[in-house]
Amino acid sequence: LYGQQQLNETFLDHGEGQQFLTKAFQVILEEVLCKGTDVKEKVCDWREPEDLAALLDLELRENGESQHQLLKRVQDVAKYSVKTNHPRFFNQLFAGVDYHALAGRFLTEALNTSQYTYEVAPVFVLMEEEVLSKLRSLVGWTHGDGIFCPGGTVSNMYAMNLARFRAFPEVKVKGQWALPRLAVFASQESHYSVMKAAAFQGIGTENVFKVNVDDRGCMNPEDLCEKIELAKSQGAVPFFVHATSGTTVKGAFDPLESIADICERLGLWMHVDAAWGGSVLLSNEHRHLMKGVERADSVTWNPHKMMLTGLQCSAILLKDTTDLLKHCHCADATYLFQQDKFYDKSLDTGDKSIQCGRKVDCLKLWLMWKAVGSKGLEGRVDRAFAHVRYLVEEMKRREGFQLIWEPEFVNVCFWFIPPSLRGDENSPDYQDRLSKVAPTIKERMMKQGTMMVGYQPHGGRVNFFRMIVISPQVSHEDMTFFLDEIERLGKDL
Amino acid sequence: LYGQQQLNETFLDHGEGQQFLTKAFQVILEEVLCKGTDVKEKVCDWREPEDLAALLDLELRENGESQHQLLKRVQDVAKYSVKTNHPRFFNQLFAGVDYHALAGRFLTEALNTSQYTYEVAPVFVLMEEEVLSKLRSLVGWTHGDGIFCPGGTVSNMYAMNLARFRAFPEVKVKGQWALPRLAVFASQESHYSVMKAAAFQGIGTENVFKVNVDDRGCMNPEDLCEKIELAKSQGAVPFFVHATSGTTVKGAFDPLESIADICERLGLWMHVDAAWGGSVLLSNEHRHLMKGVERADSVTWNPHKMMLTGLQCSAILLKDTTDLLKHCHCADATYLFQQDKFYDKSLDTGDKSIQCGRKVDCLKLWLMWKAVGSKGLEGRVDRAFAHVRYLVEEMKRREGFQLIWEPEFVNVCFWFIPPSLRGDENSPDYQDRLSKVAPTIKERMMKQGTMMVGYQPHGGRVNFFRMIVISPQVSHEDMTFFLDEIERLGKDL
Ligand SMILES: Cc1ncc(COP(=O)(O)O)c(C=O)c1O
Ligand SMILES: Cc1ncc(COP(=O)(O)O)c(C=O)c1O
Repeated sequence: LYGQQQLNETFLDHGEGQQFLTKAFQVILEEVLCKGTDVKEKVCDWREPEDLAALLDLELRENGESQHQLLKRVQDVAKYSVKTNHPRFFNQLFAGVDYHALAGRFLTEALNTSQYTYEVAPVFVLMEEEVLSKLRSLVGWTHGDGIFCPGGTVSNMYAMNLARFRAFPEVKVKGQWALPRLAVFASQESHYSVMKAAAFQGIGTENVFKVNVDDRGCMNPEDLCEKIELAKSQGAVPFFVHATSGTTVKGAFDPLESIADICERLGLWMHVDAAWGGSVLLSNEHRHLMKGVERADSVTWNPHKMMLTGLQCSAILLKDTTDLLKHCHCADATYLFQQDKFYDKSLDTGDKSIQCGRKVDCLKLWLMWKAVGSKGLEGRVDRAFAHVRYLVEEMKRREGFQLIWEPEFVNVCFWFIPPSLRGDENSPDYQDRLSKVAPTIKERMMKQGTMMVGYQPHGGRVNFFRMIVISPQVSHEDMTFFLDEIERLGKDL
Repeated sequence: LYGQQQLNETFLDHGEGQQFLTKAFQVILEEVLCKGTDVKEKVCDWREPEDLAALLDLELRENGESQHQLLKRVQDVAKYSVKTNHPRFFNQLFAGVDYHALAGRFLTEALNTSQYTYEVAPVFVLMEEEVLSKLRSLVGWTHGDGIFCPGGTVSNMYAMNLARFRAFPEVKVKGQWALPRLAVFASQESHYSVMKAAAFQGIGTENVFKVNVDDRGCMNPEDLCEKIELAKSQGAVPFFVHATSGTTVKGAFDPLESIADICERLGLWMHVDAAWGGSVLLSNEHRHLMKGVERADSVTWNPHKMMLTGLQCSAILLKDTTDLLKHCHCADATYLFQQDKFYDKSLDTGDKSIQCGRKVDCLKLWLMWKAVGSKGLEGRVDRAFAHVRYLVEEMKRREGFQLIWEPEFVNVCFWFIPPSLRGDENSPDYQDRLSKVAPTIKERMMKQGTMMVGYQPHGGRVNFFRMIVISPQVSHEDMTFFLDEIERLGKDL
């Protein structure tokens, strides 16, 4: 098939490839970063799925395409993708761009390293440890362990698995059958990853006891005690309390001190899911929201949310100093973790992971931190809170905006009451009509592409908006625009 | 804290940021892509951990740094990282760079999308489905399901979890206690992710029955039957057979037809871990190695290995058409997967995942495929096999190279017998002395930075090299260099 001739040559033309990459970089700069952050441009260019599929010509064929055609594809992908960097993207728990983090991400991609051994990832093994140790110090720990995971859900899974292993080390070898029925506790407002973890790890979703919350959405510690008793009375063994700092919808912070008291007293693993709220630890003004976090056994913190590193960047932080992470997850593969290496093999941290190949997630965070410093990161957090205060004041001034709770964090949950519904609160179909407002406004804003914000029904309340304020690139003008735009889109409803 | 003034302005200077990014791109181009692929440059610039830590100045401080200083950091990270794109990096099951894939990765990073709903990831929801369907068609399925996962280990975990759920749907709610003890079967040569999965999912590592292999490292189907009987005799319920196409060390392909016969007869879920070997399906000449794969229930395939997309890109492919993936993993979060959306909500594929936020892993593969076509991908696979044939012939011609098996795939496993050991096979300390050869040569090559290749003890054999041939950018010259270099580094041992 191949002559000697052909195999003497390499198959790839680096010059041509690098030229393409440079041109693609220009397109990315123009379409995604310039236009994509320009308030005069759309946040999204909505297409019906069939139309979009046709436009994109997704089919993969026998033959390759010209460089020109491929650049057009880069452009199309950019054009029809949602601009999550846009100052008017308020739809998820991430938004905005940090250029230093982005440079770190490009470098990560170009280096294409897998984060398992010092041999293959010398820089990143050391860097990951440094970044984790910095995050731990903000939690309040001088020692400990941790690892970056592909997302907060996986980080939360690590916590549950570690807790199970600490309580019943035999589970690793023998499986869940060797154990009594276990019980997990999380608030009604906790993220659905608790349920995913319980299902995936063989614990079972019915063994997640949902603890009641107060008006603000914070876990009620008395009900936690009651739920623990309830679990015991059913013959289940409590082992894991999953508290939340910054709940997904309401942005509530569970009372960590009281929860820690209970966990200490009963010997339960205390996990704090601060995937969303962890960033308050960066702020002297706001870190009180997580008072008591240092008493936890583990903390999930997602820099890919409020810290703007970009997906994916999630750390599971541990207080443990007994190498629990390694004992729990190691498989001791000799082909990767040779024991006769010429350097300290404790640097081969890969066996702490449930993964094998693992993406480098620390560089973007490290480079951004080097660029803006802890002070710069603090400033961003404080600014987001300040914007929220402004937004809330404005909402109170305007007719038709009904706050659902006073926000404790940067989630602003509200109903927009359109003119035709105002004063109609007591009519029997009010809730039903109100429930249709947010979806209609959402559809309109998507189709016009002016902004994006999410809505949901939640805890017995009909559809309401959840506005998220994160991005350091938003200004008061964007807040004002947001309110004006909701009014404009909903005024005839 | 903030005056109105300050909050009116945005915090981020896009112009400055984009300028930094452009300069960082130039550094990446120069250091990682030009120098990093140049045979005249080193594969790695080895430093002792303490020295490297000092050089990198990893500490994260209160204040940010100048752009100039930050560019220097980009440069340092590049300089001291291993050049996995280098033609003489043979150390892992990935190597080399594809510039179109890399452009796709940069675009992915810049867009920073999470792959859960059509609303936020319209292009990528459609694109992922197209790419999965193409991969499935190569497996031999016209229908089915699947999802991209953060690595092959997680893909393998999905398979095990789905199999458990199909056999015992109550496990999701009730947990493993509601089930009899289960049994998993995988060959002695299977990847350690089977063990990680069994531990993580509460199945237990002792319930993974290791099936014997033949001389080439392929699962022995008769022993599979025996192990199944053994498990039953211990009261465990067999449910999952994990076959491997392309084992990690030997590159062996399990006999899928015979395994499928057994699985069909006994009603067991048949999984094929083709994380490494899956790429043979691209080649008409070599796809026979996976004959019978279409009879499997699930297949793991990692384009981030032989297909050069870069980390992370791993697909779990399913034959199932009953929405098992969704049923098994869904948590129905209303804040994300609203039921009253204005478009077809079956496009909100995120609840099929065990993750919540999920990185876009399909774009790089799609863009590369568009660039080179199925034919181009086939050519790369065929070329790697041709290089292996050449390498093996050369090894046979040279003194001191002792092949451990005739390679079936692109893993070339061999001992280098240094001059002082030749003819000494029968001396009592031969194995002991031989075991020290590979580590010493490895240390020397790392410290000189000329190339990288892995070694391991395995299955009773003392340390041997595992040379991996993937990269389309290698030539015969690189193969020759490899052999010369091993000789040079080991000639005095
Ligand atoms: C056969 C096999 N399966 C699974 C994996 C795991 O893949 P990943 O490293 O993407 O987790 C590997 C990795 O080398 C492998 O060789
Ligand atoms: C409180 C909380 N925990 C965990 C997660 C999961 O994080 P990820 O999306 O990275 O899996 C989220 C995501 O929104 C969250 O809000």
